[in-house]
Amino acid sequence: MNVRTLLAVDWGTSSLRGAWLDARGQAVEERSFARGILTVAPGEFAPAFESCFGDWMQRPDALCLMSGMVGSKQGWLEAPYCTCPAGFEEVAANLAWVKPGRVAIVPGLVCEHDGLPDVMRGEETQVFGALQLLGLQDALLVLPGTHSKWVRVQAGRIQSFATFMTGEFFALLRQHSILSRTLPASDGAFDSEAFDQGVTLALRGNSLLHTAFSTRTLSLFDRLPAAALPSYLSGLVIGEELRAQTLQANTHVVIIGSAALTQRYQNALALRGVPAQRIGSEATWAGLWAIAQTIHPSLLKTV
Amino acid sequence: MNVRTLLAVDWGTSSLRGAWLDARGQAVEERSFARGILTVAPGEFAPAFESCFGDWMQRPDALCLMSGMVGSKQGWLEAPYCTCPAGFEEVAANLAWVKPGRVAIVPGLVCEHDGLPDVMRGEETQVFGALQLLGLQDALLVLPGTHSKWVRVQAGRIQSFATFMTGEFFALLRQHSILSRTLPASDGAFDSEAFDQGVTLALRGNSLLHTAFSTRTLSLFDRLPAAALPSYLSGLVIGEELRAQTLQANTHVVIIGSAALTQRYQNALALRGVPAQRIGSEATWAGLWAIAQTIHPSLLKTV
Repeated sequence: MNVRTLLAVDWGTSSLRGAWLDARGQAVEERSFARGILTVAPGEFAPAFESCFGDWMQRPDALCLMSGMVGSKQGWLEAPYCTCPAGFEEVAANLAWVKPGRVAIVPGLVCEHDGLPDVMRGEETQVFGALQLLGLQDALLVLPGTHSKWVRVQAGRIQSFATFMTGEFFALLRQHSILSRTLPASDGAFDSEAFDQGVTLALRGNSLLHTAFSTRTLSLFDRLPAAALPSYLSGLVIGEELRAQTLQANTHVVIIGSAALTQRYQNALALRGVPAQRIGSEATWAGLWAIAQTIHPSLLKTV
Repeated sequence: MNVRTLLAVDWGTSSLRGAWLDARGQAVEERSFARGILTVAPGEFAPAFESCFGDWMQRPDALCLMSGMVGSKQGWLEAPYCTCPAGFEEVAANLAWVKPGRVAIVPGLVCEHDGLPDVMRGEETQVFGALQLLGLQDALLVLPGTHSKWVRVQAGRIQSFATFMTGEFFALLRQHSILSRTLPASDGAFDSEAFDQGVTLALRGNSLLHTAFSTRTLSLFDRLPAAALPSYLSGLVIGEELRAQTLQANTHVVIIGSAALTQRYQNALALRGVPAQRIGSEATWAGLWAIAQTIHPSLLKTV
């Protein structure tokens, strides 16, 4: 083991989280801030970091690893993408050092599929963490969200992945489309029956371009109450994402994310007859810990 | 022939068009106004109509037929939907009379498919007109737009149809999604090569939730110039709509709409190996003329 403690940081588009990991890689203290990279002006990343974590970085052996959009063009320092297939060793060998030996950013991944490039930043770290926590070397994982990622892992390395703009499509339809006039102002309580109805329809095979319109017509003819429509639409969009996946009946899926969202995906996968297990945001800390252990000692600042 | 002249009106959400049709059903004068139903307050439809077409309605034998969203809840007078299958005779027998014998609104259609209702208002009239103009009794027709309609006709009657929110999805992605940051502010010139590339990718089978993201990554890696991205995205969305259709190689499709849009659909259908012919907005006048000829004489105001 090269690293005995770690400041693990998840710095995304809209939020900033950090944890101090002890010698067993356990988070002993966590902090979160509404300081996503979109709120930080160019040149202001160092002071923002200092104000959030400066006290922790005073410790003599402090090492900080960060993942997420902080490594993008709009972030602190651009960390070039690693090409798939890639494991956490490749990622550890391609860190972008903000302060040599002390603060580094984990690179994102790029893969090529069907003649098209695809990219991720931050999800690779969550995947490596989930593999560690679950003791897996081969898995199909999904990280639901604004841009969901489906990730195939073999022998501990990410072979390929694909992005689905599921959360963003839901928000666009919810807020800006003609459906927004039919839907209630607030999402209200989750309606699992309406959600399942949406998933089932989407899995039957028609395009979201068509099924989305049923949100309007079912309401027009009083076949679904207005309060059930947001859950129904959520089911349509998530169901469309699942329909697009190649899943054998014996495929086992790992879902990484918040409790509410991973629960929806687990329910939707069950309607496709696919078992799944869920894991939360602790995957990020475990991933950063695993990457840190692989950093070559010559790169670390000795004290 | 019951009706010898007709004021034909297409009153939609965002525009109002009218034509005076002579004894052969030909438009001898046309007018158009930026007075879609969204601009007209409840109770103001009669004066709006009077200001646009009052002089024409002074003629002693004047009969006016209107189609489109003017017959919706938000329009002048709600015209209840006719149930499919329906031909222009059923539609003519279910007109909603604003002024008995003088001014009537054509009802929309409702059909049930896969346990879901679907609706149209205005497109039924264009379909009936296209059938008349092309001398067809059996056809598959598409009316591209904000909400595209695919319509199956047998023996002159609309058997079923399905709505695809294609134009609206394009606008949502174009204006409100993360892709809007990548796309140029103006659509610029149409790029047929980029359009075909988008259609071809969509026809290969992955969901728009996934393919849409390639608009971003192709730009990120300089594989497509920014100026080509709007045409590429248009191809992705229209290609997704076409992929969702059951089309045999010998299917013949009629495309009804504006020259620019029907040209895109004809090109996209050619990439699926499906021949298509195009027809313009004259279909609306021909449809209203055909419906007018079927009105029972007892319903017409004699002069």
